Amino acid sequence: MELNPQQPFELTPFELTKEYIEKIQIAISEQNNELIKTEMEELYPADITNILYELNGEDSHYLVRLLDKKLGAEIITNLDTDDRKKFLKNFTPQEIAEYVDLVDSDDAVDILNEQPKDISEDIVGLLKDKEQARFVNDLMHYDEDSAGGLMQKELVKINIKQSVTECVEEIRRQAEDVENVTAVYVVDDDIILQGRVSLKKIILAKRGSKIADIYSDDIVSVKTTATGEEVADVMQKYDLDAVPVVNIQGRLLGRITIDDVVDFITEQAQEDVQAMTGISEDVEEDDSVWKLVRSRLPWLIGGMCGSFLAAKLIDNFDDKLSAIPAIAAFIPLIGSTGGNVGIQSSSIIVQSLADKSGIDMPLGERLFKVLKVALLNALIAGMFAFAGSLIVDSVNVQLSLTIALSIFSVVMLASLMGTITPLVLNRFDINPAIASGPFITTTNDLLGYGVYLLIVYLLM
Amino acid sequence: MELNPQQPFELTPFELTKEYIEKIQIAISEQNNELIKTEMEELYPADITNILYELNGEDSHYLVRLLDKKLGAEIITNLDTDDRKKFLKNFTPQEIAEYVDLVDSDDAVDILNEQPKDISEDIVGLLKDKEQARFVNDLMHYDEDSAGGLMQKELVKINIKQSVTECVEEIRRQAEDVENVTAVYVVDDDIILQGRVSLKKIILAKRGSKIADIYSDDIVSVKTTATGEEVADVMQKYDLDAVPVVNIQGRLLGRITIDDVVDFITEQAQEDVQAMTGISEDVEEDDSVWKLVRSRLPWLIGGMCGSFLAAKLIDNFDDKLSAIPAIAAFIPLIGSTGGNVGIQSSSIIVQSLADKSGIDMPLGERLFKVLKVALLNALIAGMFAFAGSLIVDSVNVQLSLTIALSIFSVVMLASLMGTITPLVLNRFDINPAIASGPFITTTNDLLGYGVYLLIVYLLM
Repeated sequence: MELNPQQPFELTPFELTKEYIEKIQIAISEQNNELIKTEMEELYPADITNILYELNGEDSHYLVRLLDKKLGAEIITNLDTDDRKKFLKNFTPQEIAEYVDLVDSDDAVDILNEQPKDISEDIVGLLKDKEQARFVNDLMHYDEDSAGGLMQKELVKINIKQSVTECVEEIRRQAEDVENVTAVYVVDDDIILQGRVSLKKIILAKRGSKIADIYSDDIVSVKTTATGEEVADVMQKYDLDAVPVVNIQGRLLGRITIDDVVDFITEQAQEDVQAMTGISEDVEEDDSVWKLVRSRLPWLIGGMCGSFLAAKLIDNFDDKLSAIPAIAAFIPLIGSTGGNVGIQSSSIIVQSLADKSGIDMPLGERLFKVLKVALLNALIAGMFAFAGSLIVDSVNVQLSLTIALSIFSVVMLASLMGTITPLVLNRFDINPAIASGPFITTTNDLLGYGVYLLIVYLLM
Repeated sequence: MELNPQQPFELTPFELTKEYIEKIQIAISEQNNELIKTEMEELYPADITNILYELNGEDSHYLVRLLDKKLGAEIITNLDTDDRKKFLKNFTPQEIAEYVDLVDSDDAVDILNEQPKDISEDIVGLLKDKEQARFVNDLMHYDEDSAGGLMQKELVKINIKQSVTECVEEIRRQAEDVENVTAVYVVDDDIILQGRVSLKKIILAKRGSKIADIYSDDIVSVKTTATGEEVADVMQKYDLDAVPVVNIQGRLLGRITIDDVVDFITEQAQEDVQAMTGISEDVEEDDSVWKLVRSRLPWLIGGMCGSFLAAKLIDNFDDKLSAIPAIAAFIPLIGSTGGNVGIQSSSIIVQSLADKSGIDMPLGERLFKVLKVALLNALIAGMFAFAGSLIVDSVNVQLSLTIALSIFSVVMLASLMGTITPLVLNRFDINPAIASGPFITTTNDLLGYGVYLLIVYLLM
């Protein structure tokens, strides 16, 4: 247990290097089990998980099978869903069950949900820990992204009628199953949640105290049906490190800890960014080439289809274009301005839909404000377009005016479209973030060209 | 303290309604202080903060001045930076000092940093809590976004030579100052961090135990100079609810709790999204119309400048355009395909730069993979462009081939540009997320038109 005070740097996080990976790879190929075990003992489970990402399948299986089951279970828990699915393909249901026995119930359900239905049933049948099997069966009913699907059954609860001494005994009894305890939940005879006692209060309480005298009834809980976003919002708003989950009667069923919610928030942010940038699958740079190609094709092809329609539209004006080819030169100005304005507008609405701290602005008020912002931007952009086309591109005043008027209309239209599309998608429970991506750009492009050519037709 | 078990719904989060706000507004205008106080007692501080957002300045000051100082301090802590700055303008340095005396040291520094330098010095001079004044003076030296700037000085530490009984006494002594205790940090005589003891272990330890016998030396710490992102990564990776902050000698200086990091992660994600969508200031839907307009103008105008150049470029081909106006009809196809591909490419690199769990791919390997993905996408998109222009827009085979070849080149170019730009920005410590926005679109548009017209010139 003693640490050498001369080496405080050992306390800082481990840095994974290429050299270290090579050392481990060599040790595995030489089956130098002693070296591997000694090295892994020095590391945190999360660091070993990162090593797995850098090894090939065979090596990573070899490494995990070499380790203590409890440590192996923790490493497997840390893997990403997709990687874990692939990783566990090489393990028998019996082996998987041994790991599932040792993880928290929420992680157990995650692992089981990733397996084919028949294998997952086999695994549940093979669980040795009967309480874990019961927990898992309870949790499997809930939707993955709901509070029920995020919660774990492991928690310490105490009846409101009991004493602090009994509470300490209860903590001792459950100490092994519930690793991360910061508070004990207080319930009545029907397990209806009544409040909580922090461990600090238990430590400071007089030995003979009753729970009823020291607990706090100031407790925020969430229902099993709450969405992951709602849970994340509640925990952020009230700065909670864990939130109890209750059913509709208020009965305490589980708890969600902040680390799971942080993961959830990060995943959500990544998904939104991918939706906004036109990537249709959850991909990372180190996925296979084909997966990366596939994730980009839908919006790439979708955008091209929009452009074929635009081409058809523009082609109707071929006589105007051959007479005044300068008209064509400003097609990019119309397209990119419309696209930029549309994305800016939708991004502000998407963020404000995601941020639930305030009251939602009424629709009328929201649109009126958007209209004011749009009008100002459109006026400024229109004037700039007039000056720019006149000075930089030296076209005649008539064309400059046409362009300025088109830009004015396009900015107005794109602002409204960019605002309304995410609101409509949100109403239909579709992730509004997809409205910030190629979808809004493509629609705005088409609308923009239509407006431009219409104004050309009317004015010139 | 007793809760009516018939009303378990009181435990769920409070929903802020328009009616409730009106009720409070009326109570304020009637100076019905009793009603206001009773209502506020029912709420959590975070809920009262949300009410402030819905009130005008005068009403919100009235409300906060009415409340107990401790509660007021918590409400003020919850406010966003910008709102707090505005809100506190109406308070005297003396009043602000009374609140600052009561908040955690990290929040105290945030509040002081938002004030003009002379006022902030006045406030520090007026602090009654001399320990707080010392904490604040220590913390003001650190960069806001570093671990030093994020940490709070409030924590419970114990010397490794002491006993569990002494530790419980220490917790009791600091109970009021350090609200959220989940673990006690273990240090040596030089306050060098040695490890931690969870409160659970303290509860379960025998009365006579020594700290040295029960503490865990398995502890992750961060240096004061670590960036906010590094702190967030470490806490997420190791699932920590608090991380101790040490100086270069390993001396324990403070701690960062997960709630501050969650806020940091959310803020970062929002900033990235705004950078990507071409919004140049940190804005929200309820900011002033002028601020919203201003935040969008730089990229709007920037994009238009790019398009003026594009117009000049296209104008050089006016003889070709008047001869074959169909060439103009495919300008949008080139522009939007290049834009979409560029944003997709940069978004993948930006995310992988943000995710520090793995080893960075070497540059050569990274570019080779991008090249493979680009080649496949370019081939598919090229063939699709050939077929689409031929069938949907019924152009001749020569123009179809020109378009297909241009799309192939544009996809290749945009993929490379979209990959290299964020890498270069990152190297120069500029947020690579801005490369996913209008910047990359504008550059890609220009490149794309150039390539298209060059191919037209060569082939037709």
